[in-house]
Order: sequence, then C-alpha cells, then structure tokens
Amino acid sequence: MEKLRDAAVSRLLSVMPTPARNPFPLAIITDFGYRDHYVGAMKGVIASIAPRATVIDINHGIPAQSIAAGALALRESWHYFPPRTVFLAVVDPGVGTARAPIAIETRAGARFVGPDNGLLWLAANKAGIKRIVKLTSPRHRLTSVSATFHGRDIFAPAAAYLWRGTSISALGPALRPPSIVQLDLPRPVESAREVRGEVIYVDGFGNLVSNIDRRAAKQFGSRFRHKSLSVRIERGAAMRMLDAYGDAPKGAPLAIFGSFGLLEVAVRNGNAAAHFAAGPGSSVSLVAAAGRT
Amino acid sequence: MEKLRDAAVSRLLSVMPTPARNPFPLAIITDFGYRDHYVGAMKGVIASIAPRATVIDINHGIPAQSIAAGALALRESWHYFPPRTVFLAVVDPGVGTARAPIAIETRAGARFVGPDNGLLWLAANKAGIKRIVKLTSPRHRLTSVSATFHGRDIFAPAAAYLWRGTSISALGPALRPPSIVQLDLPRPVESAREVRGEVIYVDGFGNLVSNIDRRAAKQFGSRFRHKSLSVRIERGAAMRMLDAYGDAPKGAPLAIFGSFGLLEVAVRNGNAAAHFAAGPGSSVSLVAAAGRT
Amino acid sequence: MEKLRDAAVSRLLSVMPTPARNPFPLAIITDFGYRDHYVGAMKGVIASIAPRATVIDINHGIPAQSIAAGALALRESWHYFPPRTVFLAVVDPGVGTARAPIAIETRAGARFVGPDNGLLWLAANKAGIKRIVKLTSPRHRLTSVSATFHGRDIFAPAAAYLWRGTSISALGPALRPPSIVQLDLPRPVESAREVRGEVIYVDGFGNLVSNIDRRAAKQFGSRFRHKSLSVRIERGAAMRMLDAYGDAPKGAPLAIFGSFGLLEVAVRNGNAAAHFAAGPGSSVSLVAAAGRT
Repeated sequence: MEKLRDAAVSRLLSVMPTPARNPFPLAIITDFGYRDHYVGAMKGVIASIAPRATVIDINHGIPAQSIAAGALALRESWHYFPPRTVFLAVVDPGVGTARAPIAIETRAGARFVGPDNGLLWLAANKAGIKRIVKLTSPRHRLTSVSATFHGRDIFAPAAAYLWRGTSISALGPALRPPSIVQLDLPRPVESAREVRGEVIYVDGFGNLVSNIDRRAAKQFGSRFRHKSLSVRIERGAAMRMLDAYGDAPKGAPLAIFGSFGLLEVAVRNGNAAAHFAAGPGSSVSLVAAAGRT
Repeated sequence: MEKLRDAAVSRLLSVMPTPARNPFPLAIITDFGYRDHYVGAMKGVIASIAPRATVIDINHGIPAQSIAAGALALRESWHYFPPRTVFLAVVDPGVGTARAPIAIETRAGARFVGPDNGLLWLAANKAGIKRIVKLTSPRHRLTSVSATFHGRDIFAPAAAYLWRGTSISALGPALRPPSIVQLDLPRPVESAREVRGEVIYVDGFGNLVSNIDRRAAKQFGSRFRHKSLSVRIERGAAMRMLDAYGDAPKGAPLAIFGSFGLLEVAVRNGNAAAHFAAGPGSSVSLVAAAGRT
Repeated sequence: MEKLRDAAVSRLLSVMPTPARNPFPLAIITDFGYRDHYVGAMKGVIASIAPRATVIDINHGIPAQSIAAGALALRESWHYFPPRTVFLAVVDPGVGTARAPIAIETRAGARFVGPDNGLLWLAANKAGIKRIVKLTSPRHRLTSVSATFHGRDIFAPAAAYLWRGTSISALGPALRPPSIVQLDLPRPVESAREVRGEVIYVDGFGNLVSNIDRRAAKQFGSRFRHKSLSVRIERGAAMRMLDAYGDAPKGAPLAIFGSFGLLEVAVRNGNAAAHFAAGPGSSVSLVAAAGRT
C-alpha cells in the first residue's frame, strides 16, 4: 500500500470546520474535455476541502488552449449565477511558466479563480474588479504542485477555500494596482456602407457568432430608415435578419440576434459553419438593402 | 461595470423562501452538447432560483435537433428517477416560433418541462398526463426573453420553480383538453414470415436499437416452436439471438434484447453501426430459422 | 399508463432511512460516453436510493471497452477524493457473462464497485484491499436485471447502498481469498543505453503518457552524471526534458514529467499524438545525450 492520498488534501481537511451548505455554487469551466479524468481529479480535491459545495459544470468543451473562447463563454454565463458564486476557470497553455495564478473579488460579488492570461478579463471586468491576489499561500494548495496541472494543484484548492469562507487575502498577496492581462474582443468597424465585424465564436450547432451587438446594429440601421438590413459572411449572398430560427425555410441561412445578444448567422435545421466553411475570424458584414423589412 | 446580473434572476430570489432540500432531483436532458456554455447558463439560472436543488445531467448529447432521439432517451430514463423528479428537456428547433412552452404534471408524480413539439410525449404518456399548462407567467421567466434560447429564459426558470414548490397552475393557463403534440415510435409489421421493424436509435457504442419489443418477438416465436429466431439488418446475413454480448466471438455481430427492452444488434467488442453501415430507419427483420436454439 | 417505475426502485426506497448528508461523495467513471442517457439512468437509480448523495462525474469518456484506460484513470483520480468515497466504475465488455460484479473495501477507506475484469485493480491495490464481496443480494439490485446494463441494474444500486451506510457484507458473500483479476501496467525495460518504455495513455490534448516514472528516470540518470537525458518516440528525433509546456517553442515537441508523475511527450500548443502518429504501445525511450541540461 503506497502513499494513500495526497498529504495536502488530508491536511487541508483539518484546517477549518465546514460551514453550513451555502446558497451559492462553485462553477467550473475548462478546456479539459470529457475524455480524461482531469476534471474528476479537480472535483475530488474540491470534495476533500469543501464537501458540501454544490459544484456545477459550466462546460469543459472549450477548444483546447483557446483562451479567447473560454473568456467569452465565462462572460456569457457568469451573470446567470447567484451573486457570490465562485468561478473556477482553467484554460492554461502557460501552466508552469511565469503567468500568475490569481483570484479576483468583484463588486458584483462573483469570485474568479484561474490563470492570469486573459481568461478572466471579460467576465471580471463586467463584474467590477475589486481585489486581486496572487495564489501563493502554501497552506491553500496541494503539497506537491506539478508543473502541468495547476487546475488540480493550485486553482481547485483556492476555489474550494473561497467557497468555504476563507478570506481572499489569506490566499496570497494583493496585486497593486489590481490589474490583469486584458484580452478584449475585436471591435466591428463602421463605414458609410456597412458595419464590418467578424466571427468570434462558433457554437456546437455551427452557429457563427459575430462581434456586432444590438446597439451597433440599431445605430447603423437608423441611418437607413427606408431600407432593411441584411448580413453577409465574407463575400457571400446577403441574408435577411429574422426573429427566430424557425422563420427561415428548412436548410436556409439566416441572421439573428442570438442568446449572446450578438448578431449570429445560422442555418435552419443545419450547420452554418459547414454551410459557409467559416469560422473565427471570418468577416460578417451588416449592410443596408433595398426595401424594408 | 455594466448591468451585472439579469434583473429577473435577482428579483426571482426574493419571491419565496427556499424549501428544505427536497428528496427528488431536477434532471436535465438536451441536445446542447458539451462544447458550449449553454447548459451552464441554464444551471446558473436554476442555482439562482433553487440553490438547494440536486441537478442531474441525464445527457446533453442528443443529436442536434433530433426530437425523436430526445423523446426516446427521456422515455428510457425518467422511470429510474424518484417519483416527484422535475425533468427539464430541451430539443427545440422551433424555438421562438408558435410551438408552446409547457409544463406537465403526471399521475406517476413526475413533472416535465419543455417545448410542445413531441419531445415530452413518450415519457409523459407513460407517466399518465394529468395536467398541462402553457408557460406564460412573466413572474416565472427571465425579464428579457431571447428568441433563440428558451431553455435558459423560460424552461429553466419554470423547472426551478416547480422544484421549489411553486404550483404548476401558477406558471400559466391549463390546456383544455390536456393534449400535446404526439410523436410515436414507428410500429413493426408482422407478416407470415417475419416481423419487420426498423432501427430507431443508434447508441454511442454503435448498437442498433430496433422498435421490436419482447412481446412482439415472443408472440411471433410461438408460431415457430420448432425453429429458432434470427435477425437480419436490411438484406444482410442472419444473426443468432444471444443472451449476452460476451456470448458472441470477438468481432462477430449478434442480436440481443438490450437495456431498452428492445431488440438490438451489436458487434462484440465492435461497432454495429459501422459494421453494417446502418442507422435510424434501416430495416431490422426477425425471422424463423431452421433448427432450434 | 403502463408500469410506472421499476418496482425494485420503489421498494428500495422503503428499506432504510436516508442518513444525514455524508461528507463524502459517490464518484462515477465509465466508458458510456456523453451521447446517450445511460449515465443518466444510473444517476436516477442512485437518486432513488440515496437522494442526498453528492454524485460526482469523474469522466465518462474512457475509450469504449478499454479496461486498461479506465483502470489508469481510476488510479490517477481516486486518491484526490475524501477517504470514504464510493467509486462506481463501469467499463464492462463482459456484461452478462461469468465475470463477477463486486464491491471492495480498502484500508485507505475508499470503496470500489464494478465488474471484476481488471478495471478496479490498480486503484484498489494502491488503496489496500481489505474485503471483497460478490454482488448477489437480490434486495440490493433492481428487480429486473438486464443482460446488457449491469451499471444501472446492479452496480448503481450497490454503490448507492454503500453510500447510505449499508454494510458491504449485506451485498453478497465475501471472496476468500480476497483476490480479483489483476491488470498491471507494462514495466519499462532498462538496458545499458536506455530505459525503454511505451505509451500507456493518450489524453484529450494528445499528450503521450508513458510508463516511465520519476524514480526509474532518476536512477537511470544517476549513471550519466555528465550528460543530460533526452527522450525519443519510436525512432524519432531526441527531445529535451523540460519543466513546463511553455518552456518549449510553439509547435515544438517536448518531454516532461506530467500530472500522472509519469514521463509524457507533448507538443507546445499542439497535439503530440497527431504530430508523432503515435498511440498506446508506441515505444518511448529515455536516453543519455551529450552535454548537460
């Protein structure tokens, strides 16, 4: 019988009493996928430190090492969770290098734990960054820290402690000023004839999500009061803007403001990414067309 | 710092006290897949309204927009759950169109929430439909309802409220009569020489599940008391009926009554869908063969 | 309205009172994938018997019918969980044949439930096998046991009962001696010029995990004090051993001791399995190179 359990996990258990079941969860988002036990190991660490935490998987299907996709998914989901939710986010191609492991407290109440590589920026900035600490406390990580899996060895323990009520300042020194790596979405460019944006996310249905939001579209549209707006992917044919996927004929492409609040291109009962052979970076143009919707 | 959290979620929190942890779960089944944060956003909404609910993923791998596959998976799983379980089911290609969002109360105790497009029919019909309401109550959905994601904006809140103890009648007006879109499985056809069915589901192992049940097979078999029964996919070779996958030689095809209680064709340590190049709609025939098993 | 719920599940509910929420979880690992409702049906059974259990998915993406991959994933994750965790493991190509369904109690406290086909060996052996029972008790399985899905019909009920506090000896007769099918990892072979191992696992990032551990590498390295060590996949070019993925140039291959504590070959921001067209069984050699790191 070899060393039975990570000594740090056992020791952690004795640090403080487990509080009554809190009314906020610990939510996890990673690019670890579903093939391996990596997410399971993180959940084991969390269960050892915070056995009464409600742990929620946001998703683990972020494309491998795509910090931008992870940042967008976190931005799109955090605000549906209860105010004090602890978010554990790991898309971490720089694990083991100089990028810092951090935890963030926000004015909205949400806490974010993960690598300082841009992943947390979009969500934390919306939530209002209040305090950032670097996760250096040896008491709040596993004894043996690998160079390849800080999700398990550093981030999961930190998130579990925050959930339990450990003060963020116990996890390490505050960053002053509280600034992190910023990774902003590309902005669409408006000209006389079009708003030119790009695909920033392709979802599992093949829907092409652009960076053009309702306000930009409304403002542009107000200049063409006698025309309707239509949308083009790269140099393709113009598509009408519709209100529901089901308003298009089966198999036909359409443009719509989707659940991100952003302009999306979809194919009814189909896959727009395959239909247009398009993906992140493909251009999306909003143009004024003859006639009015 | 922008609008921090959906106003409706915050408001919902104050509507009623959270009950003690109930001994039944809230179970979710969708075709959202695992790539995106969509299921995560739904769980955030549920955690905001019913923070003490035990939320169980049935699965999110239903083939995109396949209402029939979702209906079958729900039929095959609901009865293993505790009696008062709330099922949240979303396969919803018609989101944003006229199809109604509904909740169903059943004689068996199970509650079902989802779109009225056939998805809920097989399970709810088995459970005994008692009451159906159309989800129209503005107090029990998010303030801002998108045209593309009713799972998050309408169905998740309704399911969370039901779990908390909100009466189904508070969610909207009853449908009278309580009827919904019916989507029944194709029935096998019995002739003098065979029972001719079809593949209705292909599972992740590649097993081909047919619509031929034990009763139909038994009845057919009783007419051929001195012969054994065998099975054919399309015009392929006849396969013997076995009692366990492991009773076939490695790599050999076999027929078996599987976990659905339906006739399945499998390949030992292999993938029958690939082996036979078969899928939903492929014919499955039960025939009498010379000799007796 | 047909037979509403499996009679056994209903009956099981009355067997004993549900204990207060325990501070250890019930963790599940399978090769069932994410396409089907199979894991969902197991969770329904667990929720019916042990409604207050915290159920954790380790992962369900074990390659179909790969007992070795499942055994390794369980070995790599169990020790991060709280001591008395109940592990429900199902990779079961021999379902319905003579292989026994078992439960194991260990000196470390962990309990394991699954088929006796080697799947449980690596983890249970590390945890220290104390007692093994064969799962034969009709009161602790579903009334109707299929020949194809013991995960739902036998293993899930047994695990749920263990979680609730049922004594392991109530589940069936003890095996004497307490021995199970053993499935050990291949051992690397050390010669004068190299340590020759092989790939035993490929993870979702494409990292190639070998069977060469730190101790073997250290011992071998001590014989070449003036040289550095490097690594080769099959007959490929030698790679340097690095301390972090990020220490290699983008797109370059590297060797590293990864989160398993085993020698891994990775490609920075890439996929080593694709880069080397390698997989389980490919040779991995540790050799002494000129110069010192």
